[in-house]
Parts: sequence; structure tokens; C-alpha cells
Amino acid sequence: MTRWRLIIEYDGGPFMGWQRQDHGPSVQQTLEEALQQMTGEQAPVHAAGRTDAGVHALAMSAHVDVSREMTPRRLREGLNALVRPQPISVLEIEPVADDWHARFSCTGRRYLYRILNRRAPAALDRGRVWHIPVDLDVKAMREGAAMLVGRHDFTTFRSAQCQSDSPVKTLDVLEVERSGEEIHLRSEARSFLHHQVRSMVGCLAMVGRGQWAPQDIGKALLARDRAALGFNAPPDGLYFAGASYPE
Amino acid sequence: MTRWRLIIEYDGGPFMGWQRQDHGPSVQQTLEEALQQMTGEQAPVHAAGRTDAGVHALAMSAHVDVSREMTPRRLREGLNALVRPQPISVLEIEPVADDWHARFSCTGRRYLYRILNRRAPAALDRGRVWHIPVDLDVKAMREGAAMLVGRHDFTTFRSAQCQSDSPVKTLDVLEVERSGEEIHLRSEARSFLHHQVRSMVGCLAMVGRGQWAPQDIGKALLARDRAALGFNAPPDGLYFAGASYPE
Repeated sequence: MTRWRLIIEYDGGPFMGWQRQDHGPSVQQTLEEALQQMTGEQAPVHAAGRTDAGVHALAMSAHVDVSREMTPRRLREGLNALVRPQPISVLEIEPVADDWHARFSCTGRRYLYRILNRRAPAALDRGRVWHIPVDLDVKAMREGAAMLVGRHDFTTFRSAQCQSDSPVKTLDVLEVERSGEEIHLRSEARSFLHHQVRSMVGCLAMVGRGQWAPQDIGKALLARDRAALGFNAPPDGLYFAGASYPE
Repeated sequence: MTRWRLIIEYDGGPFMGWQRQDHGPSVQQTLEEALQQMTGEQAPVHAAGRTDAGVHALAMSAHVDVSREMTPRRLREGLNALVRPQPISVLEIEPVADDWHARFSCTGRRYLYRILNRRAPAALDRGRVWHIPVDLDVKAMREGAAMLVGRHDFTTFRSAQCQSDSPVKTLDVLEVERSGEEIHLRSEARSFLHHQVRSMVGCLAMVGRGQWAPQDIGKALLARDRAALGFNAPPDGLYFAGASYPE
């Protein structure tokens, strides 16, 4: 048996999310079925993060155990051929220790959120960005973002379905940058609550529009109440950007 | 009557190309039908370049005459609402002189070609890049590209369907640059022959793979014979990037 680590890119558009669902296609099911076709084995593929419907990945980390002996290249190319035409691509694959776990060994998760900030809607990036047609105040958004960095009770920014034991998380990074016609929000933490990134981005967009002052972010955080949330940003602009592990 | 200049972004994937076709959807037809819905007028939309099936535009220039009085904002937003769900977006719109012509007044056309140069296929950019899994030699490609810059008879790089009066064109720019996992080829000329960019990129990819020496590009050019062509790059990676006009 070999435990393989996979790094996977996917377009979340056609999927119900990472995790297997009864009611529609998922990234996990697509990969597991491709593996079964190749190896005859039924093995679960575990990921560092379970992205929601419509959320993308630039570099999702995952692992799977395979009994059949194979070279990494054969496994990667076989999977990439078999997942077609689904928009999933196995970027890298390497053997890891048997106790390495994509989710439980993970010590850091990074997300990118892309806002297209111009008058005209997206044509080429439709479904891959959140289109906000009014000019956003990036400086104000940055001030608001700074209030979220650190160890806080993020109850306000947590979905009703969140399964985390505690609402207390440490947000290490929350950067807001203009890049041409886009605004990029990069966040980093050991772990996130369900919908945390989209909730934070939704509120920061209200700051950017001038509907909230930057300090309103701090007030919403202190309220520790989901009702204090502005709103959730749509999944389209969200990308799982990478996972970190101890050496 | 007002003549409007439009700058348009589109994903060429679902279209038979820019130009109206009997056998499938086109960008031109989609825009003309949206205009007719808004204004009740049937007016042709003329573009700086007629992109082929599957070729995209970052900023296509076009014009159309409209009798009904409208503000630029109303026209742009109306068109963008009516072309949905097609991946077309009118980025800018402005009134121009009655004798301004998107095609005939154009003094420069720019194209971008994107090659995804990594082992794994594209997931997020499927249909938007040409995937070449073997490492390309960018330096050699640049040497080959330099042989195409200038005034030449480009018969070798011209499709059988090309309607240009002369195969002699002046290629002002042909740059090859690595950008992360991608290789970008930027070309610029007053005008191009049909399939010229894709033919040049196809041959330069052969140089990048080491199947051709850089000098073979010069030999192919001198042959002035379509049979000397390596092959055409696919439409997926090609973007009409912009058109220039006199002040």
C-alpha cells in the first residue's frame, strides 16, 4: 500500500463542492471513480479543505491509499485522462508516509478571493470572479481587514452548518490588493470556519462600497452574532490556494 | 444617427467565430440581436478583426450605427443585460465620427497567445490556453520569432481561405515571454493574414520542443509555400488583445 499526496486544480463551477453528495457531482467522487477505474480499488480521497459548491481550487492537497503498485507519473496521467471532461487536473503526486493526512496534518490553509471591480460584467472569467460594478475603496477595505487578523471568536462569520468545535480561530493573514481591474483578498489560517472567508469578504465589500465604515467590521466581530453579518460573498470568486504541512 | 465605438470582451468557446454564420452562433449575431431588441433597429456591427471559432477577445473594437437616442451608459448596460447568458461583455462604448470605421480605420492589431507549459492539463483555464506538456525552450522560440518580424511575404503562414489581396505584411512585434507556468506570445501588425498568428505560434512551438531549429522558421518563411508550415496552433490560446486607431 502506498499513500499518495495529490495536488489538484479544479474549476468548482460544475460541482456540488469537494465532498461526495447524493444529489450531484463532486470533485471527490469524480477522483474516486477515476481511481477505481485505474486500480479496481475503492479508496476515499481526503482533502485539506472541503470547498463548497462553485468554489475553485488552485492547489488543493489531498491523499489516497493505493495497493496496486504504480509510478507517480502513471498515476497522475491516468487520473488526468480519466477525469475528463470534468475540469479537474492533478498537478502533482508523490508518495508520503502512511500517517500523513491531508486534513489532519495540515497546519495552514490559504484562500484567494477575486473581485472583478469594473463597470462591465465578466465574459472570460464568468463564474471565476465576483463582479462588483461600483468602485471599491481598497484602503478602507484594508483597514477593515486588519481588525479581523489575530485570534478571535468568529461566530459572526460562521455558517449555521459549521461543524467546528470552537468559533475561536487565529487568522494569520488577510490582505487586500488591487491588481488591474481586480481586487484580490488573500487569507491564511491554520483552519477556517465554514463560510468564514466568504463572510469576511462580503462584509469587506460593504466597507469598499462605503455602506459600512471600516470600524463596523470590528463591531460585527465583537457582536459574536451571525445576525450582525453583512452578507456572504458568492462562491464564484473563491479559490483554495494551498495547504501547508510540517517538513 | 450616432456611430458608436464598442470595446468588447468575449470567450470564443461557444461561438463559430466573430462573423455571422448560417450554421451556428456568432458574436456578431448575438450583439446585433441584442441591439435590435433594445432599439428595434437592424444594424450591422463591424469589428476590427474577424476572429475564428474558439478564438477569444480581451478588447475587440467594433462600431455600429444607432438612430434611437441613448446615453452610452444605457446602451452598454442594456447590451450587457441582453447578451446574457452568452459570455460577451461590452467594456466601453463611446460616440465616434460618422466616418470612423472599426475595420478600415484600424492602424494596428494586437494578439496574445497563451501556452500552458506544464505537465498537468488545464482545469481552470480549459479552452483558454494551449496545453503543451513538454518543457519549451523559450530562448530558441525567441530566436525563431525574430526571423518573422519585419516586412515579408507570409504565404507559408496563410490559410487557404485567406481573402487578403497580398501575402506581404509587416509584422511589427512578435515577443515570446515566460510568465509562471505559461508562455505568452504577443504579436502586433497593421493587419494579419488569415491564420497567420496561429501558424506562426504552431511553428514556434516546434522550435520550442526542439523539433525545428530556430533557423527553420526563416527557411519556412522563404519557402513561401503553405506546405512548409509546421502546423497551426489551436484557437483556444488566441486572444484579440486590442486595436489601434489614429488620434
